[in-house]
Amino acid sequence: MTYCLAIQVNDGLVFASDSRTNAGVDYVSTYSKMHTFAVPGERCITLLSSGNLATTQTVVNTVARDLADAAPQNLGTFRYLFEVAQYVGELSRRVQEQHGPALREAGISPEANFIVGGQIRGQLPGLYLVYPQGNYIAASPEMPYLQIGETKYGKPILDRIVRPTTTLDDAARCALVSIDSTMRANISVGPPVELSVYARDRFEPIHRLNLGAGDALLTETQKRWSEGLRQAFQQLPRFDWEQ
Amino acid sequence: MTYCLAIQVNDGLVFASDSRTNAGVDYVSTYSKMHTFAVPGERCITLLSSGNLATTQTVVNTVARDLADAAPQNLGTFRYLFEVAQYVGELSRRVQEQHGPALREAGISPEANFIVGGQIRGQLPGLYLVYPQGNYIAASPEMPYLQIGETKYGKPILDRIVRPTTTLDDAARCALVSIDSTMRANISVGPPVELSVYARDRFEPIHRLNLGAGDALLTETQKRWSEGLRQAFQQLPRFDWEQ
Repeated sequence: MTYCLAIQVNDGLVFASDSRTNAGVDYVSTYSKMHTFAVPGERCITLLSSGNLATTQTVVNTVARDLADAAPQNLGTFRYLFEVAQYVGELSRRVQEQHGPALREAGISPEANFIVGGQIRGQLPGLYLVYPQGNYIAASPEMPYLQIGETKYGKPILDRIVRPTTTLDDAARCALVSIDSTMRANISVGPPVELSVYARDRFEPIHRLNLGAGDALLTETQKRWSEGLRQAFQQLPRFDWEQ
Repeated sequence: MTYCLAIQVNDGLVFASDSRTNAGVDYVSTYSKMHTFAVPGERCITLLSSGNLATTQTVVNTVARDLADAAPQNLGTFRYLFEVAQYVGELSRRVQEQHGPALREAGISPEANFIVGGQIRGQLPGLYLVYPQGNYIAASPEMPYLQIGETKYGKPILDRIVRPTTTLDDAARCALVSIDSTMRANISVGPPVELSVYARDRFEPIHRLNLGAGDALLTETQKRWSEGLRQAFQQLPRFDWEQ
């Protein structure tokens, strides 16, 4: 399993992902699910991926090759971010069509989900979720975050904290808590946690962290969040019969 | 959808459920998913249900009829709680076998899940989760709660708070928060929230609450929990670049 999320606030974008992958419970490994392509001063695009690892790797490899070869369609040619989402969706469908029949015979799904986010000069920053079918939806002020993979455990804290006016640093902190809650609940989501912060009109990530299991920031965040939740719990109103 | 949970602590049991049911998004109604059968001084058994509403209603009706008719097998005859779980599982399978073929032709699942909990004199209190296939698992000191329906949004808070040594009142408060988090995240889970508290060796519920959408306790719990989470969030460590 996997958990990736991206948050869009007025000041920019935050991307976060876990790094655990598994093909059955007896084949668990660590892969980055976050890939950033930047043309400094011009565009910065980050991909997050979940689902079939062979599908997502082929899509990311193809994206990188198209860019390196200056193919007619590549990350450097699109004028709008939604066109990048469309391109990633098309690549994803093509890979799934190629390997889907053989995989389905073996009872394996070829499907993959992507989050595509970033900014192209002349446009506002944006976030898109690309479905396995190749179509996509965008984040919005009413829905300022997108998630893929094991999304439910980490959703309540996002709903309570994230607004368009949230600072980038608070959004990054909230993403960490959201991933931590998910790692506690589902053992197939695990560290290292990758975190990338993109500030509007900067055209490259301003911060990038890779937090391993024993990382001091991650450990301290987990500890204080647990303490804070216990304090919050102690402050809840009592039942009538307790008075 | 539905969300029901039950918690087992040293002092007794807590049961909680939402009351929203839906057959598609355009047919949403309110039904209790909590049914308690008590023989004062002798036994007290509570059923929580999720899944196909026709299946769960038929099972509950049959349980009530068997008890009223003093059928050879009824809630009053079992010596062990696991036998009650087995009985509920058998009834559930029988109903699903009866209506399953017609339902599946219409693309509808006949499946249902139950939580069976309570105490029979001479035994310790217990909790069982009965699967649609009729088999069951028990709660344990390491896993002191069971959930059915939309289980993920409300799990993180249970993992952080509930231990066998948790008081009944704290367990009941935690159940409320767990249901509130779920109601916020999934519109198909909704009030009134039913809450029942069973103290060991009492053989009847000691508290029972039915909290509607505007209920003062529910509203105040939601408000203080939101405030507490925001405070906890403010206490999280800062990133290096913020110093």
